Amino acid sequence: MSMMSSTKTDAIDWSKGAAYVNGAFMPISEARVPLTDWAYRRSDVVYDVVSVWDGQFFRLDDHIARFRRSIKRYRFTPQETDAELRQILHRIVAMSGLRSAYVAMDCLRGQAALGIRVPSKAKNYIACYAAPFTSLVPEEHLQRGLKLAISTIPRIPHECVDATAKNFHWGDMNMAMFEAEETGADFPLLLDFKGNLTEGPGFNVFIVRDGVVATPDYNMLEGISRQTVIELCAELGIDVQVRPISAAEVRDADEIFITSTAGGVIGASQIDGRIMNNDRPGPVSSELRETYWEKRKSGWHTEPVNYDAV
Amino acid sequence: MSMMSSTKTDAIDWSKGAAYVNGAFMPISEARVPLTDWAYRRSDVVYDVVSVWDGQFFRLDDHIARFRRSIKRYRFTPQETDAELRQILHRIVAMSGLRSAYVAMDCLRGQAALGIRVPSKAKNYIACYAAPFTSLVPEEHLQRGLKLAISTIPRIPHECVDATAKNFHWGDMNMAMFEAEETGADFPLLLDFKGNLTEGPGFNVFIVRDGVVATPDYNMLEGISRQTVIELCAELGIDVQVRPISAAEVRDADEIFITSTAGGVIGASQIDGRIMNNDRPGPVSSELRETYWEKRKSGWHTEPVNYDAV
Repeated sequence: MSMMSSTKTDAIDWSKGAAYVNGAFMPISEARVPLTDWAYRRSDVVYDVVSVWDGQFFRLDDHIARFRRSIKRYRFTPQETDAELRQILHRIVAMSGLRSAYVAMDCLRGQAALGIRVPSKAKNYIACYAAPFTSLVPEEHLQRGLKLAISTIPRIPHECVDATAKNFHWGDMNMAMFEAEETGADFPLLLDFKGNLTEGPGFNVFIVRDGVVATPDYNMLEGISRQTVIELCAELGIDVQVRPISAAEVRDADEIFITSTAGGVIGASQIDGRIMNNDRPGPVSSELRETYWEKRKSGWHTEPVNYDAV
Repeated sequence: MSMMSSTKTDAIDWSKGAAYVNGAFMPISEARVPLTDWAYRRSDVVYDVVSVWDGQFFRLDDHIARFRRSIKRYRFTPQETDAELRQILHRIVAMSGLRSAYVAMDCLRGQAALGIRVPSKAKNYIACYAAPFTSLVPEEHLQRGLKLAISTIPRIPHECVDATAKNFHWGDMNMAMFEAEETGADFPLLLDFKGNLTEGPGFNVFIVRDGVVATPDYNMLEGISRQTVIELCAELGIDVQVRPISAAEVRDADEIFITSTAGGVIGASQIDGRIMNNDRPGPVSSELRETYWEKRKSGWHTEPVNYDAV
């Protein structure tokens, strides 16, 4: 791994973000994937995203470990070690100067010599970027609660594409986003072919019924924010069930909330047009959201960005 | 659509290919997608590929028409008209100077302003490239016939991602390629969840039994080479059935052949290790292959590249 930096640093607006692509560091605007790369052309790529808040990475070890599992699951062989990856992530955040950032790491298939179509012959590589942190939803939606809608489009089954290895197979979710927008919802929730809840575009889903929290066990990303909520529930003495959840249970839930690196815990106020909790996030969702941010601010699972790493 | 050309044309090796990205023409080596583009990051993109052989496009109208259907199916709104797209495709082949080329056209979602995650807010655009033509398989494999293997990984169901709109959701096929390689096969064939044949990575599949040709009707790309074979069978007086085909029928077939823009008709000699036709492509497959290339060379469905379009 060579550590070449872009040269004319004076002229560049680094606050829009910094990137690392296959050995080179650059402003985010220069970070690009060849039009012929199989990472794009066959969506042959895995990724992960970690957040930085107030100069602190959250659960960086867990994100790197999951990224490595995704890499192995889809049979990539990048050069970078976990230790090098950690240095790269610190360095791109430091280069950007951002105190709050959305930090992505991708492992790309690359491509083989012209005419060779076998993925095992491609040279894999890593690309990462740090961009300004943006929440999954604007602040006013956090207050009023998300409007969610169950999509008519089923989630890609895990037998076809294993969702536990974080990937860009979002065709179902892309169209479900259009569908949700047309019904006035902020986000769709996708079911599997049995009619059980899976996940939404970029988030896990929890329901609350009679004070008990439940989240699916199957056909979804094993989110790190999801794991965080399971841990917080244990601390707070809230029962959590990890099990299949039917669409009927979702529609009849007392509360629904979603979890994502892009915002932590976010409560919903409507499901398929039905109003919950006087059209606001419910009490369990709100307690978990507040606890999540209090714990993060207190240094729980955090690692300070090394801003001298530039 | 502006028609800016890259300037220093003297110094560039155009024979590796030429590209068009969102209004600008450039050598293929400069054609890149932003790391943050949803076309890459959510595989929110459709595409098509047309071939040029001996200076002639093959079925260009049909490819542009299918590309437009894919664009509409996935709700893209690019600026370019079909007539402009045709000009762009002629121009990139002319810029490359290639007499035989693989010519791709993509419609990308793009991205919205920072923090906006709704795909309807993105600015869509077109990217195209012309690269040297490469067959799906090397010449010696055409002679000896393909070794095919039925994958254990099911094809993504059309209810999740509609395969008739040509897309990059290849996660199932990418892993099936690794699986095929390990069993000594050239390519995998993917089944649906009912155990019926769908397609393979970049090709449609036909079986021959007792002189009758059959190909699936469901959960696969409606290939233009597939359509061409159906037309050729009608001319040659060969019966064609478009219907569900079980894995057992595939394993017991007299012949199997595949169809792709990257090579036309290609016969197989082995399926799951079973040898067919004395380990060579079968007679119906070979007749269709020869007829396909004779007809192309005779000008059937062809359109000459305008090499003055540079």
